[in-house]
Amino acid sequence: MRLKNIPGSREVIGASGFVEHEPEKWAGRWRERFGNDYPVRVEIGMGKGQFLMELARRNPQINFIGIEKYSSVLLRAVQKMEEEPLPNLCFVRMDAQELENVFGEGELDRIYLNFSDPWPKERHAKRRLPSSAFLDRYDRILKADGELEFKTDNRALFDFAVEELAGTAWRVRELTYDLHRDARLNEGNIMTEYEEKFSALGNPICKYIIFREK
Amino acid sequence: MRLKNIPGSREVIGASGFVEHEPEKWAGRWRERFGNDYPVRVEIGMGKGQFLMELARRNPQINFIGIEKYSSVLLRAVQKMEEEPLPNLCFVRMDAQELENVFGEGELDRIYLNFSDPWPKERHAKRRLPSSAFLDRYDRILKADGELEFKTDNRALFDFAVEELAGTAWRVRELTYDLHRDARLNEGNIMTEYEEKFSALGNPICKYIIFREK
Repeated sequence: MRLKNIPGSREVIGASGFVEHEPEKWAGRWRERFGNDYPVRVEIGMGKGQFLMELARRNPQINFIGIEKYSSVLLRAVQKMEEEPLPNLCFVRMDAQELENVFGEGELDRIYLNFSDPWPKERHAKRRLPSSAFLDRYDRILKADGELEFKTDNRALFDFAVEELAGTAWRVRELTYDLHRDARLNEGNIMTEYEEKFSALGNPICKYIIFREK
Repeated sequence: MRLKNIPGSREVIGASGFVEHEPEKWAGRWRERFGNDYPVRVEIGMGKGQFLMELARRNPQINFIGIEKYSSVLLRAVQKMEEEPLPNLCFVRMDAQELENVFGEGELDRIYLNFSDPWPKERHAKRRLPSSAFLDRYDRILKADGELEFKTDNRALFDFAVEELAGTAWRVRELTYDLHRDARLNEGNIMTEYEEKFSALGNPICKYIIFREK
């Protein structure tokens, strides 16, 4: 998701207490930053934050970190947090390539990918967030049995994600090609902005939850 | 695959030495029937046998058993074996529901499903050969790390098969949505009659190999 560049967004983000500006220094001890011992979960590419804020509201005993690369998008989430501060949620402006510099080994409980950029050109396949190269990164920062949750309406990206599981040690906990029509898996589902828009157009939403035994 | 009923097919099959008529009695000791200690592999729904005969030709040190429910189809395979007997291949006319009566626990090395009946109606989902109910049966007769290989051009059936892996202990070794365009996975591929026909029409062939750690 890209919005138009919004002048001043970097400055607003730079001044916001909801954004962690030195994330590397918390690697391996994010719980300290939150001042509790709750599990830590991360959404990569959180966009405007609707999903993650609702998740944080519903789960006060879990810490959430939203990662977003684009200032103009992150700005919207920061503005929403100013209206309704949530103590168990903070944001980081960063590229997912840097994950291992920002989180310690086995530190996370769960990672969320929602409607990630499909990078449709074959030569960009490694940039896709459910690629095996990224799965290796997630594996290192997830705890044993930690989960990766991925939702998309882009069928080609989802098929790619399923292919990428081959030959890895990841196992499938849940998988559906039409989340909203699966009453059991859809229970408690929190829709992202994209999900609301594209499912209203009739696009089925694909989802998997995978995990690694260690 | 169904052919027209061919009069006399049951009689020809009944008299053929290439067909095992009392398969239950070999459960757990099929190697004895073949008179060797080679691994045993089974194709479920072997149709006219093109795939399995070529596989048996190429792998004289593996025993193969082809299972087929319909006499009229099995007849063609029997006729081909009469022209070219293969000592490491035999046939059984049976329903896949009976697998556990015919094979012992952990007896098989690999199971092949090729272009299985999609049973498109939802109420028939349990009859689909890659359903989780069948996966449980395969699991019991496969050895530790034994593999299930499944090919189809029916995308809906393949998607169903992928969904069925969720929540099971099966893991994916190989998976592709376009076998013939994947040079690495297609190496050594033996085409079935269906595969030749449908891939010539431009249908991509999906394939997975899954296994269970035990």
